[in-house]
Amino acid sequence: MTGKEQVEQALSEVLIPGVGRSVVQQNMIRGIEVTNNVVKVTLASTALGLNSQDWIRTKTKAVVEKLPEVNKVEIEFIETKATELNQISRIFAVMSGKGGVGKSLIASLIAVALKRQGNEVGVLDADITGPSIPKMFGITTRPEGSSTGILPAMSRSGIELMSINLLLPQEDDAVIWRGPLIGKAITQFWEEVVWGKLDYLLVDLPPGTADASLTVMQSVPLDGVIIVFTPQDLTTMIVRKAVNMVRKMDKPIMGVVENMSYLYIPEIDKRIELFGRSKGQEMSQVARAPLLGQLPIDPELARLCDEGNIERYNSDAFATFSQAFIQALPKAKIEQ
Amino acid sequence: MTGKEQVEQALSEVLIPGVGRSVVQQNMIRGIEVTNNVVKVTLASTALGLNSQDWIRTKTKAVVEKLPEVNKVEIEFIETKATELNQISRIFAVMSGKGGVGKSLIASLIAVALKRQGNEVGVLDADITGPSIPKMFGITTRPEGSSTGILPAMSRSGIELMSINLLLPQEDDAVIWRGPLIGKAITQFWEEVVWGKLDYLLVDLPPGTADASLTVMQSVPLDGVIIVFTPQDLTTMIVRKAVNMVRKMDKPIMGVVENMSYLYIPEIDKRIELFGRSKGQEMSQVARAPLLGQLPIDPELARLCDEGNIERYNSDAFATFSQAFIQALPKAKIEQ
Repeated sequence: MTGKEQVEQALSEVLIPGVGRSVVQQNMIRGIEVTNNVVKVTLASTALGLNSQDWIRTKTKAVVEKLPEVNKVEIEFIETKATELNQISRIFAVMSGKGGVGKSLIASLIAVALKRQGNEVGVLDADITGPSIPKMFGITTRPEGSSTGILPAMSRSGIELMSINLLLPQEDDAVIWRGPLIGKAITQFWEEVVWGKLDYLLVDLPPGTADASLTVMQSVPLDGVIIVFTPQDLTTMIVRKAVNMVRKMDKPIMGVVENMSYLYIPEIDKRIELFGRSKGQEMSQVARAPLLGQLPIDPELARLCDEGNIERYNSDAFATFSQAFIQALPKAKIEQ
Repeated sequence: MTGKEQVEQALSEVLIPGVGRSVVQQNMIRGIEVTNNVVKVTLASTALGLNSQDWIRTKTKAVVEKLPEVNKVEIEFIETKATELNQISRIFAVMSGKGGVGKSLIASLIAVALKRQGNEVGVLDADITGPSIPKMFGITTRPEGSSTGILPAMSRSGIELMSINLLLPQEDDAVIWRGPLIGKAITQFWEEVVWGKLDYLLVDLPPGTADASLTVMQSVPLDGVIIVFTPQDLTTMIVRKAVNMVRKMDKPIMGVVENMSYLYIPEIDKRIELFGRSKGQEMSQVARAPLLGQLPIDPELARLCDEGNIERYNSDAFATFSQAFIQALPKAKIEQ
């Protein structure tokens, strides 16, 4: 006879339109009852338009009816808050304080590395006035949503993405908002997006220690903050401000990442330290957290980001970084 | 007999303690009367502590008493709003939208170029959470102030500076403020700082199109905005947001500057376009404003900035940039 588990397994074939993850992965199954060969499935309708609900109803019926000894399938949609659907194991904010050090790049590369390891990963772009995430992943599809919530966009390799730029008519439209509205947008990305079940959610913070960073630290249950910096003194001075903010907000620092560490010139087989000598050890001490990795400036990576193909990036430096980062993950966690 | 003009000339020897500019340059003379060999000088007391007032009184007396046929010198201090003392010919904001493209660097280099041409120049650092200006100029002196105003700090070559970092106990203290407070700090830097007489004031904006940029565009009578970008697509997409904001706020764009245009490797006598091909022409068209210059990545410049010695910078690229920028100044102005 068909049991709950079989039904659930069958439902993992029901993909949510526009997302490409199943109702199971998105945690939208709210109940399964099997009585006298009648299967009753309760699903969350959060963020789903009527067309999507119809599609999911039809598809659910089809896959469940195929199960042995199922005579009837009843499907009910119920309103559920997005926050109740979200089961996220680890949430890290990627922060710098300083702009242009590669926060979004590092957040995206970490997402790519974790995804390649088989994790379910999402990226919440909390940079409302300068959002870079969708462009790097080459994603322009407008996320589906209803009055009850928003579904994340999906990258080619299956990373969930949410960014203000996916919601603007044009990617270069300016968001001329004061702090309270920016805070509200970020809160919505956290409370109203159906992230579903994820192993990791990375929150890409904007530069500064003002509204956006404050809102994230106050509203999102962060497991830790990853600090990104470049070797220039001018940068590390401002990054130290970010470290001080994280400490004041009583959040753990998971580790520090040095970006633009050097530039390798193949013609002369030489590393040039464009922005001065590495500050890896120094920043690790300042943040009292491990140095999770060092990445060089790579024109190939800049090109891939401009093309929206960050997920295709492969290099020795990235491989080393990914490995070291993933190894450091549980260790850094325990050390806090 | 001594006339007003002679008195004023004599007063140009009276330097304001801690600023190094005279009461004439700081526009603090509120009145000069010469009657029957009695000279009455009225000075603004704005931002001056009692010690500074005493010092200025003594010094003023000394220089005026030396003038021919002066029997008596009377000095009076009156309260005046800083805004009434400020006579600034041209105010430009340096903006990007994107962080880390070198806004502060370009603002500072423009200030240095204008100063070398004999102009009186000030830089208002409107980046409250990530202020870089004092560090590049190597200035850490706390500006003098009173309940009525603040005096700017002075760089080694005589550029007036104001930045939140000059007011913090430690340069790496985080300013964890929401938008309204950030707006208030910027308004104070504009309304309560005694800039005095200046040919140019450059306002260094933070990344983003939120509170700080809005406040500057709404409260400071800008003559124009200079847009800074780097060649990466990802950057220009966000810089276009800044351009759109400036247009919505109905401010003229004076010109665009490309930073990190290329890197010159002397060993192989080659220019590497680290972040892709130049977007100079494209951005000039987007902003409908002239391309004012292109600057390469220069490790020597990064080093000088870290040392606080940006004023010592000399390079062929900077010379070309300075010349082109200064030539473009009135032309760009007229074109608006």
